[in-house]
Amino acid sequence: VRPGDDLAALIAPELRDGDIVVIAQKVVSKAEGRVVALDSVVPGAEAMRLADDFHKDARLVQVVLDESASVIRAERGVLICETRHGFVCANAGVDLSNAPDADVAVLLPLDPDASARRMRAALATATRSTLPPDSSGDVYGVIISDSFGRAWRLGLADVAIGAAGVRVLDDWRGRPDAHGRELRVTEVAVADQLAAAADLARAKDSQQPIVVIRGAAHYVTSEDGPGAAALRRPLELDLFR
Amino acid sequence: VRPGDDLAALIAPELRDGDIVVIAQKVVSKAEGRVVALDSVVPGAEAMRLADDFHKDARLVQVVLDESASVIRAERGVLICETRHGFVCANAGVDLSNAPDADVAVLLPLDPDASARRMRAALATATRSTLPPDSSGDVYGVIISDSFGRAWRLGLADVAIGAAGVRVLDDWRGRPDAHGRELRVTEVAVADQLAAAADLARAKDSQQPIVVIRGAAHYVTSEDGPGAAALRRPLELDLFR
Repeated sequence: VRPGDDLAALIAPELRDGDIVVIAQKVVSKAEGRVVALDSVVPGAEAMRLADDFHKDARLVQVVLDESASVIRAERGVLICETRHGFVCANAGVDLSNAPDADVAVLLPLDPDASARRMRAALATATRSTLPPDSSGDVYGVIISDSFGRAWRLGLADVAIGAAGVRVLDDWRGRPDAHGRELRVTEVAVADQLAAAADLARAKDSQQPIVVIRGAAHYVTSEDGPGAAALRRPLELDLFR
Repeated sequence: VRPGDDLAALIAPELRDGDIVVIAQKVVSKAEGRVVALDSVVPGAEAMRLADDFHKDARLVQVVLDESASVIRAERGVLICETRHGFVCANAGVDLSNAPDADVAVLLPLDPDASARRMRAALATATRSTLPPDSSGDVYGVIISDSFGRAWRLGLADVAIGAAGVRVLDDWRGRPDAHGRELRVTEVAVADQLAAAADLARAKDSQQPIVVIRGAAHYVTSEDGPGAAALRRPLELDLFR
């Protein structure tokens, strides 16, 4: 995928009503031109210092710092950053692997929820154009996923960094359980679980950036909804840090 | 499901070679008799104090403390605990909802990986008994899942607290990507993603404790393997806390 490619036109012919399209962040970023040639980057003093400590490319570290609202940890060669969107992840989501040129850094989309909404609108346009004019049109959900590390547990799991038309949080609080008692829990991170499920369907070396989830139409909404921003846990509600 | 029920006999007729059986922790705990009648619990001083602060049942708090190696946070009515197994979760995984009696606490299995291995062996026995004697037998994976809160992100996501016959971590480090370059990342928390995928297939009020994942046989192993214990991140490797 290259800057300017029409992802919706590639995906639309495969879709059915109620499908959820999970797109890897990297391919969205590339299509949106969120790439930086490292040759164009002049590292500052902090990037030089961190790069020296971590044996990294100072230009790449500068890109990571530019994408970060704050650096939460800088240890053992890993920068755990809070991005300008409020995501907490390694290297502020900046990636080099699988880039067409080894000297190019791929950044997270500027506004992944907006990216998901645009993709959803483009899919609606692309698919309605193939339907009779009186059709009401199919409804799809869109998730933009990325692989994040987690506190307490090893291994990366995919999460939703952008979403449109998906019930990102399913709130069971106040609903009765099977015995008629109120459930004490439970707000379920549906969009993150959909992203995780989609990741199982592809190999990391496969260049399969798009996975379609079928059979989860009950999580698809007619409205775009609040997006994955609703999954960010405010600091004051975070007892798990 | 009641203490002593034969879960394997219930599941086995549905299975095919390569299936992964995801079982909700609560049903395993009940079958193993990991339940405590609150009437039998005498709360100590710390439980009384926390219960008073949090407007909780002191007997339940005592059960949570008994299940905890340490209490990581005690704020706003929530106890975030490290369990004796090394899991970090709310209330040390102790649950009341959906219990057959409101005055019964359901604890995590004593050794969830051992529970998964026992279930796997029981499934092999149950299914081989229905095959011709010269059959080599099918191979299944078993995951015991629970819903955990996360740092940084809202909503619960299911994770694997026990596993047998599943590649819990898929290590891509050192393998080449599609362009022949070494992937910098990536250790994928496969078992947690399988648990999350399974959770999408059931409703919290549905009493559907078992989900079968078909089509993921490439994550099933002939050996029981290290289990979900391999997913616990050692403190010294945890930059995300």
